[in-house]
Amino acid sequence: MMVLHGYWRSSASYRVRIALALKKLEVRHKAVNLKVGEQLSGAHRLLNPQPLVPVLELKDGTMLTQSLVILDYLEQTFPDPALLPEEGIAQAKVKAAAHIIASDISPIQNLRVLQFIREHYGCESDDIKLWAKHWIHNGLKSIEYICQTNKNDFFLSDTPGYFECCLVPQLYNARRFGVDLSTFPLLTKLNEKCCGLTEFIQAAPENQADSDIRD
Amino acid sequence: MMVLHGYWRSSASYRVRIALALKKLEVRHKAVNLKVGEQLSGAHRLLNPQPLVPVLELKDGTMLTQSLVILDYLEQTFPDPALLPEEGIAQAKVKAAAHIIASDISPIQNLRVLQFIREHYGCESDDIKLWAKHWIHNGLKSIEYICQTNKNDFFLSDTPGYFECCLVPQLYNARRFGVDLSTFPLLTKLNEKCCGLTEFIQAAPENQADSDIRD
Repeated sequence: MMVLHGYWRSSASYRVRIALALKKLEVRHKAVNLKVGEQLSGAHRLLNPQPLVPVLELKDGTMLTQSLVILDYLEQTFPDPALLPEEGIAQAKVKAAAHIIASDISPIQNLRVLQFIREHYGCESDDIKLWAKHWIHNGLKSIEYICQTNKNDFFLSDTPGYFECCLVPQLYNARRFGVDLSTFPLLTKLNEKCCGLTEFIQAAPENQADSDIRD
Repeated sequence: MMVLHGYWRSSASYRVRIALALKKLEVRHKAVNLKVGEQLSGAHRLLNPQPLVPVLELKDGTMLTQSLVILDYLEQTFPDPALLPEEGIAQAKVKAAAHIIASDISPIQNLRVLQFIREHYGCESDDIKLWAKHWIHNGLKSIEYICQTNKNDFFLSDTPGYFECCLVPQLYNARRFGVDLSTFPLLTKLNEKCCGLTEFIQAAPENQADSDIRD
């Protein structure tokens, strides 16, 4: 069985959990406790030289890293059900919306960046929140705009997929930082639709075995 | 003919220029002057609701955004010469190394983030440099480590591809911020090998028509 090394509240782990659930793939979850810096340990670095989660360990022991790359791999290896439209341009549109989250929001507001700001610029919690809120708001604004032309139930598709794997964790995160989501009615609606589905419930942070770790 | 809306010094534009050159695809370059904030203009937002470059305008007028998504699209649409290994796991390994740059380094040290730090935390140039150097060093360290097991001329390949499209712009950027590259002998060697090739010379920032704009 595959093993997902992740953390309940990590957005990138959450993305992969949703993808695995949508594809009905069996996986064992192994928690990496980011709260005590377990990702910095020698044992974790053997899995991933980058001290980050998630890592998807395949049956043959191969370690795959980077959430969107893992999604691409799953899509290629287990094509049914598809997470991406088949047609090239629609595929690129869905991926681009996902990349706004995975490249232009998430890495700028993740834990290690917030810790660096706190330590180096002597910022207090409120400044840190301001930082996170700014980048989240900024990115979501572009995606809300892009979604205006969407005619499907989910983004360019009738079933949830690649983009929704990124959106739901990002909105979960946005709420934690107190982003006013009323500015993003389309994204909020899409998120609600997803959060009612079994696969998304199964992948939700609060339903992970390590969710008793508080950060 | 396709049109690439980009900026000479933007890493993400530089990645796409290399990919287009490696695939011998004809393209017209249209400069978006980031120095005067042209990416924030209404005209640019019609191309890309995210005020960022690059945007690849296809022959039919479709606008593609997000550099790695553009690379994926080019790879799918113009498969020869390939930028990625054919085999799934090797492909995921190459993509993951590229994503370290495109997600975990570049977005954290790009212009808009540096401007925000300057404006909100009252940082001086030296603090800004420290920030950029920290994230670049951090990411490159992981990639240098990953490259230790590489037996090929380029990363997991005998020809330059997806990873090199990201590495060369990132090392160009690292030099601008004064990162000590002697810590990364494998990456430096790989970079030098690439920079001697016609395709990389053609795509280099200093060889773009808008390189007279100084920032």
